[in-house]
Amino acid sequence: MNKALLVVDVQKAFYNEKWGDRNNHDAEEKMATLIDHWRKKGLEVIYIQHQSNDPESVFYTKQEGVEIKESVKPIGEEQIFTKTVNSGFIGTNLESYLREREINEVVIVGLTTPHCVSTTARMSGNLGFHTYVVSDATAAYGIYDQDGNYVEPEKVHTVSLATIHEEFALVMTTDQLIKKLAL
Amino acid sequence: MNKALLVVDVQKAFYNEKWGDRNNHDAEEKMATLIDHWRKKGLEVIYIQHQSNDPESVFYTKQEGVEIKESVKPIGEEQIFTKTVNSGFIGTNLESYLREREINEVVIVGLTTPHCVSTTARMSGNLGFHTYVVSDATAAYGIYDQDGNYVEPEKVHTVSLATIHEEFALVMTTDQLIKKLAL
Repeated sequence: MNKALLVVDVQKAFYNEKWGDRNNHDAEEKMATLIDHWRKKGLEVIYIQHQSNDPESVFYTKQEGVEIKESVKPIGEEQIFTKTVNSGFIGTNLESYLREREINEVVIVGLTTPHCVSTTARMSGNLGFHTYVVSDATAAYGIYDQDGNYVEPEKVHTVSLATIHEEFALVMTTDQLIKKLAL
Repeated sequence: MNKALLVVDVQKAFYNEKWGDRNNHDAEEKMATLIDHWRKKGLEVIYIQHQSNDPESVFYTKQEGVEIKESVKPIGEEQIFTKTVNSGFIGTNLESYLREREINEVVIVGLTTPHCVSTTARMSGNLGFHTYVVSDATAAYGIYDQDGNYVEPEKVHTVSLATIHEEFALVMTTDQLIKKLAL
């Protein structure tokens, strides 16, 4: 089985103070560990990059925020899919790219757990890919609900993972994944 | 603007004891209220129905569980889209059906908040439809995370809604929605 590592939205824009508190500050280190394993095995590392045409957005294409963070950035011919919504599968050729390469295992890491990671994982699972989400290689910021109540980062993260586990994806830690996929 | 009401997976299978505790026991009553408003205005009520070919599934096609609950069931020519995964947009013609009718406002109610409702709402928003999720016309069951920790229904529900609000959809109550859309 061919395995792809999807690195979702790990971009400088997410280190802007506007996002407030987040959990899992070691997530990028875990992502880098997985990227390293992937490259050593000659497996496919795929980047998903969020872009906006709105000059007000921190993801606006013509400024630094849109760039992928140095510590996890692509090298050589690694594929980058740019998107303008949360799902890596909407408005991109990601699905056909995976199918053409007979990739049927998709491992997802990146930012943020409740939005782009969760949505990409949900679609990946529903499209029939064996999907994994790496709990310590993803992270969440605090968010406000429709009544203005603050939900703290760790709660957003853990409940987001619980809602996808065994329904769309298997959720596990970096160490568990390395063992599970014999990387 | 044309408005559709999407009634997701309100099927007898969900009243099986296997699901455990759920919140929002009045959700079906709220759905029925909205369905009634929709029909009176001559607006489109669309049903999403989950089906499985697995005889072990409570959604198996050849038994009662697959049927839509009486109190919210379709009448006349109302459209039913059947699906085999969580998203109402995957493996169905829902997207083209909405676009052909120039429906650009999609209101989502049904079961369950964290899985089929959330996933359908995420895709609806990402596909460019103005999407609403009705907080008191959806409901959640308790779930277990990847470490076996139980997350209670109300927490699953509220955090699921918080993670979609203002990112994929506007989350509001039945009363707020009726006012907002002048139904």
